[in-house]
Amino acid sequence: MREDVAMASVRTPDPNPGWLSEIALEETRSRVPILYVEGIPVRVDSHGRVEHVGLLLRGSATTGAMSRTFVSGRVTHGESVRDALLRNLEKDLGPTAFPQLPSSIVPFTVAEYFPLPGVAPLHDARQHAVALVYVVPVTGECNPRQDALELTWMTPQEVLSPLVLDEMEGGRGTLVRQALAYLGALD
Amino acid sequence: MREDVAMASVRTPDPNPGWLSEIALEETRSRVPILYVEGIPVRVDSHGRVEHVGLLLRGSATTGAMSRTFVSGRVTHGESVRDALLRNLEKDLGPTAFPQLPSSIVPFTVAEYFPLPGVAPLHDARQHAVALVYVVPVTGECNPRQDALELTWMTPQEVLSPLVLDEMEGGRGTLVRQALAYLGALD
Amino acid sequence: MREDVAMASVRTPDPNPGWLSEIALEETRSRVPILYVEGIPVRVDSHGRVEHVGLLLRGSATTGAMSRTFVSGRVTHGESVRDALLRNLEKDLGPTAFPQLPSSIVPFTVAEYFPLPGVAPLHDARQHAVALVYVVPVTGECNPRQDALELTWMTPQEVLSPLVLDEMEGGRGTLVRQALAYLGALD
Amino acid sequence: MREDVAMASVRTPDPNPGWLSEIALEETRSRVPILYVEGIPVRVDSHGRVEHVGLLLRGSATTGAMSRTFVSGRVTHGESVRDALLRNLEKDLGPTAFPQLPSSIVPFTVAEYFPLPGVAPLHDARQHAVALVYVVPVTGECNPRQDALELTWMTPQEVLSPLVLDEMEGGRGTLVRQALAYLGALD
Repeated sequence: MREDVAMASVRTPDPNPGWLSEIALEETRSRVPILYVEGIPVRVDSHGRVEHVGLLLRGSATTGAMSRTFVSGRVTHGESVRDALLRNLEKDLGPTAFPQLPSSIVPFTVAEYFPLPGVAPLHDARQHAVALVYVVPVTGECNPRQDALELTWMTPQEVLSPLVLDEMEGGRGTLVRQALAYLGALD
Repeated sequence: MREDVAMASVRTPDPNPGWLSEIALEETRSRVPILYVEGIPVRVDSHGRVEHVGLLLRGSATTGAMSRTFVSGRVTHGESVRDALLRNLEKDLGPTAFPQLPSSIVPFTVAEYFPLPGVAPLHDARQHAVALVYVVPVTGECNPRQDALELTWMTPQEVLSPLVLDEMEGGRGTLVRQALAYLGALD
Repeated sequence: MREDVAMASVRTPDPNPGWLSEIALEETRSRVPILYVEGIPVRVDSHGRVEHVGLLLRGSATTGAMSRTFVSGRVTHGESVRDALLRNLEKDLGPTAFPQLPSSIVPFTVAEYFPLPGVAPLHDARQHAVALVYVVPVTGECNPRQDALELTWMTPQEVLSPLVLDEMEGGRGTLVRQALAYLGALD
Repeated sequence: MREDVAMASVRTPDPNPGWLSEIALEETRSRVPILYVEGIPVRVDSHGRVEHVGLLLRGSATTGAMSRTFVSGRVTHGESVRDALLRNLEKDLGPTAFPQLPSSIVPFTVAEYFPLPGVAPLHDARQHAVALVYVVPVTGECNPRQDALELTWMTPQEVLSPLVLDEMEGGRGTLVRQALAYLGALD
């Protein structure tokens, strides 16, 4: 019998409802696609035109290799998409980023990550994940926490350089190009 | 020890990979939001204007009460959003419906169902579910299978009658109004 | 011979390029659909959820009747859609509204106004107009100028009351319901 | 005095209402942005995934140079966006193309063409034009008429080759990349 079930009736309330033990998360990842939200931080001018895109530079815990990524995280059980997006923005950008969350939760794209590389543009060795992806203007100061080492602001042109696109984790070079297309900033 | 794990090494290949035992599904539903796709079948004229909306009339197995709903189903592990949408359209509309799947997988809305009624417009007693919702023109003949008793084609005006909106399962009256707004058919 | 053509070679530079004389505008309106932008001002909470919608209350110069409308104006010759949207927001909401312009210029809906009432939900006696319609969060203080008498902030529920919907100019009750559907605020 | 005004009261009914004389069109183009619709024909598989994109190959009447473009045309006075889109698809693809018009008239992008090259990615020497751009699956046989010489079906990969992108009229290489991003077919 699994411990978390056996203990359910006696343990104190979970301080992080929706969070799972490593074992439960791994088991769940083998069973269903996991729902994520991703946010691409941008700086815009007074007309709403994108001036800079924020990419997180992250070091792999196992290989030490550096890769670039977006704000990203799971939607937990019982949590709304908006709550998950704001929680992950605050986790990755800090409390003073002042993100402007979208007024509609329709994402600009849906990203499908499969465990095996090569079957689709996007992959994630840990799981089959489906992410709702949003562009999020931020007006404040960003101070990445946790495992992200650095937030780099780049112009659309800099982001589109092959070097940067190649550094993006899990094939997200495709996603950032989709975002720039949506923003009318491909050229 | 759970049977499906114990048997995994000896049983023949799973004919429905991605499908879960009742126990595994129930356990998973308590852990993470479950990803769904929903399709709203429509008949359109040569200009793309919606003429009729297809609603499934379904009887509850437990209470016998009738309710109306859309094509709906889980995205299974390893399955793409497009595959899940087509599979569920064929399941609910039959093999001769000839649905025109959207060329972009950006949904017109994201529907969030919570287990408790009242906390949000949409609810699903079984689970926290998040659905990508699409409008799907169909040109062929629809022959609902499985537990759906009947597919009814209604004009937008008929769909918007309070009687029909109230019959819709889980609060989907809101969703169908969102769909008609998106289609420019609110009036 | 038209005066503005005769004078073109001698007059000083036009302070408002893109603006037309009344005669030229009326003639143009009889020839082609006129491109507009419309902005629906909203107040959102920290999660992006709409809390209030801003409607402009305007008195008709000819009949004295009151009607409600959005921020609205022509895109002038040579002007970008973003420039037109910002210019009209500043004209109707004043210089301290601090509108957050959309990062993508894809509108949430396209509104078609025809000169004759009854042929379509939207009409405009002056012209055939096609408007790109945006939802625009504003964070500052709004001080309507020009012919708008008052900006009223209403909850989505208040906006959806039949009384308010009926007061909306040119059939825009349909548009505001489309906006609330897009924002997930129909209920 | 202009002839078309003088003749208005005596001439027989206009067989093409909405069409303008060359002089009236040129004058109008100097006054307001002209509203266009554009359609990008695609072939999709049973899952809605784009397999081929249709590009029109057109010879310039003046220079003889070849260029590639989309289905494109003005929205005329009194004409709905849907009617304009279908009319132009039939004009450029012939009567047996069987285009599947979008069920929503929200375009996937808004394209702004300015008369001067260099100020924006898109330009049109004749005018300031604003186009609502749609992806349109076609299932029938296409027989271009009028000035288009040939319709070429290409895979997304072929379309994205620098050679093809450079051949596209008025900077539409940007537009076709936006379309492929929207369709999830950038890679």
